[in-house]
Amino acid sequence: MRGPLIYNAFVHLTPNHHSHGYWRTPEGRVQLGYKDLHPWVEEARLLEQARFDTLFLADVVGTYDLDYGDGTATIRNGSQFPGNDPSAIVSALGLVTEHLGLVVTSNIIQDHPFSFARKMSTLDHFTQGRVGWNIVTSYLSNGFRNFGYKDIVGHDERYEWAAEYTEVAFKLWESSWEDGAVLHDAESGAFFDPARIHRIDHTGARYRVEGPHIVEPSPQRTPVLFQAGNSAAGIAFAARNAEVSFLPSRTPEAARRDIAKLDAEVVAAGRASGSVKTLVQLSTVIGSTEQEARRKQQYLQDNISIEGLQGFYAGNTGIDLPSIDPETPLSDLVSRTRFTDHVRSNLRAAAEQYPDPSAVTWRGFLTDKALLPGRFAGTPEQIADEIERWATAGVDGFNVVPVTSLGWYQEFIEYVVPVLRKRKLMREEYEPGTLREKLFGAGPRLPHTHRARNQPLNAD
Amino acid sequence: MRGPLIYNAFVHLTPNHHSHGYWRTPEGRVQLGYKDLHPWVEEARLLEQARFDTLFLADVVGTYDLDYGDGTATIRNGSQFPGNDPSAIVSALGLVTEHLGLVVTSNIIQDHPFSFARKMSTLDHFTQGRVGWNIVTSYLSNGFRNFGYKDIVGHDERYEWAAEYTEVAFKLWESSWEDGAVLHDAESGAFFDPARIHRIDHTGARYRVEGPHIVEPSPQRTPVLFQAGNSAAGIAFAARNAEVSFLPSRTPEAARRDIAKLDAEVVAAGRASGSVKTLVQLSTVIGSTEQEARRKQQYLQDNISIEGLQGFYAGNTGIDLPSIDPETPLSDLVSRTRFTDHVRSNLRAAAEQYPDPSAVTWRGFLTDKALLPGRFAGTPEQIADEIERWATAGVDGFNVVPVTSLGWYQEFIEYVVPVLRKRKLMREEYEPGTLREKLFGAGPRLPHTHRARNQPLNAD
Repeated sequence: MRGPLIYNAFVHLTPNHHSHGYWRTPEGRVQLGYKDLHPWVEEARLLEQARFDTLFLADVVGTYDLDYGDGTATIRNGSQFPGNDPSAIVSALGLVTEHLGLVVTSNIIQDHPFSFARKMSTLDHFTQGRVGWNIVTSYLSNGFRNFGYKDIVGHDERYEWAAEYTEVAFKLWESSWEDGAVLHDAESGAFFDPARIHRIDHTGARYRVEGPHIVEPSPQRTPVLFQAGNSAAGIAFAARNAEVSFLPSRTPEAARRDIAKLDAEVVAAGRASGSVKTLVQLSTVIGSTEQEARRKQQYLQDNISIEGLQGFYAGNTGIDLPSIDPETPLSDLVSRTRFTDHVRSNLRAAAEQYPDPSAVTWRGFLTDKALLPGRFAGTPEQIADEIERWATAGVDGFNVVPVTSLGWYQEFIEYVVPVLRKRKLMREEYEPGTLREKLFGAGPRLPHTHRARNQPLNAD
Repeated sequence: MRGPLIYNAFVHLTPNHHSHGYWRTPEGRVQLGYKDLHPWVEEARLLEQARFDTLFLADVVGTYDLDYGDGTATIRNGSQFPGNDPSAIVSALGLVTEHLGLVVTSNIIQDHPFSFARKMSTLDHFTQGRVGWNIVTSYLSNGFRNFGYKDIVGHDERYEWAAEYTEVAFKLWESSWEDGAVLHDAESGAFFDPARIHRIDHTGARYRVEGPHIVEPSPQRTPVLFQAGNSAAGIAFAARNAEVSFLPSRTPEAARRDIAKLDAEVVAAGRASGSVKTLVQLSTVIGSTEQEARRKQQYLQDNISIEGLQGFYAGNTGIDLPSIDPETPLSDLVSRTRFTDHVRSNLRAAAEQYPDPSAVTWRGFLTDKALLPGRFAGTPEQIADEIERWATAGVDGFNVVPVTSLGWYQEFIEYVVPVLRKRKLMREEYEPGTLREKLFGAGPRLPHTHRARNQPLNAD
């Protein structure tokens, strides 16, 4: 364990984030308020009282529209559809909190980097340095088709794009304004020192941006950088850019290996070992006894929407679900030649989770997937044990996924958090300063070894 | 007078909006807080207590960089530089108010229309239907160069672009989701009715957007549409699109003519006569006596930053100021052949404001311009008289420009508002409902005669 663990509340401004269909139950009705401001304001207040590190806003900029060819199932079920703009909620949540980090997922396809950098700098001012950026490159074809592309851009090309996109943003955040550019000198009449404010004159494959950046340097300048990269290109990108990375690890042992692999690349990229914090996803079903936890898990399973889940899963994997007999064994699906390589590699990944994929049907796999929100079902003590196992493997923290996106954290805070506190697995108090200072215990800015600090400007 | 007059608080998240240099005075120091959230939160609360109709957020997406070739003067003086993202503040201001409209200026060059439409729908939900959009097409070359263009796009081409941009947004807001698409039917499991949610499949000269819109219809669907169009193309655009239009009129008599001209085009565009509300700019220096008002106006003039104003004026007009001897008569400048047509037409407009332009120097003109914030200097009663003159000419309301952007409204509210109330020139109470309902006294949606309601979709 390296310092206190990180807990992000992992939410999405959508009817069903990972618990498709649960809105139909009495407890899940709260989810109908996903599009309003006030429930999220209350949630943020609650999370800060409990000393969560951040409210982490997931996002997609398109529809999971591969089921039935048009997304009928995902749309009917409200499965990560629609999705309100997460960056639009930040100033309100910043106003009602003092310490909670506010992490916005933003895709390189959705905003021009000049506008995006401006927005994030503005929000970093408004929150006194508490914003983070989860850098994503989109996996939804519809997302690309919403922004002028005929289809999804190839995986490696997306990372090249991301490299330039971040380069533009880093130039604006880190290099356009030198320290000392803000004068407020009433006597000479200089609000700013123009000699310390520079055009960036970026010219690249996709972007031409003159600048200067039109926001003063904010407390953190660059928001804290979050990223999930599982592919080779993704890990390389994370090693060069991320300050916090999400691991795909399914077990603490796998996490240990994934952390070592990432760290080797971090060092190869010229950054300090251990400088990237690692997170895994955590979702819990909490019972006062094991029996109660199992009962609740069963209740969740009984109330899941298989259609919503199928639509969501189709959008994630590219598998057109109506074409598959639910009783087909997973092992058979993997070998179907009419699927694309992408689909088959997804199916292979699915099958590899089971010792005997011929004994698992497509329906069985989906139902199992449906229990994602119930990954750990147990008593608060058992959940704390599980958290401890991950921490011992070197994981720095968790994206805590609620069973419903709204209203669920109350339970985690009431029953699990006190146990985590007793075991020193969760902070008692916030550290002072910006989100970066709270998470890393150093200054508000990225270290000099980060590529953001080393972007030469073409101009001047 | 047609109903109560409209009062917008006209502000800009920038150090100096229209009162360049006033931050150096003791009263202007408040302006240093322009980049923080809390001063604006207090401002919004104050404006709502006084029953202002909206907080209107002006914006530019570039630097006025024509002075000294690089904006040295505007940057040094903080003249509309920098400018924080106005849309980023809306949720916080929406949270602390119940009735105040929140109007965001957004340029067609800064956001992709899919992202922009999503953001505004999200904010319309968060504010229970209180957002407006001030549609602008930018006049700053640097703005275009921040977004990949080599230079400013031609005036008429910008309006063609705006026509397509609004078409995409209107399709997403008005046509993608039919009424009745939101079901929340727990029994059937349908959160939405997919048969009533449509891709827009827009294909145009600049944009290809598939859809569907990824935000549920918000209370107003389309935000209340504001626009300032003074050119022929601009007036035509306003007549087709705007619900509220800013007039350039310098006198009530000119306003009467401008209103008639606009209204004729509104009717020609198939919309009801009088359906576009008209506003003019209002800025006041308030004294308990005429003498005090004049003293305050002199104080303002003495403390203006000529350099900041020159930089700002250079950016607006294309006149490279350092090349002009400040003692040159305006009449001489107009005929200089080395200026571009654009610059000369701006100089002609400047000269036309004076009976004898040969008697006015460039310096004199600038100092006169600097008094914009002191347009009406007088006692509260005299200011109310002036307001009444405009109202009698048919103007529907005012963009009230503060002497400083922050902290100034207190004075207007304390001294002028009570007089306006007594004369029934300002509302006593808000009307219920959305911003559109408050301003127009009809429903929350655009009328069927507006082009936004008549965009056929290519798809299904």
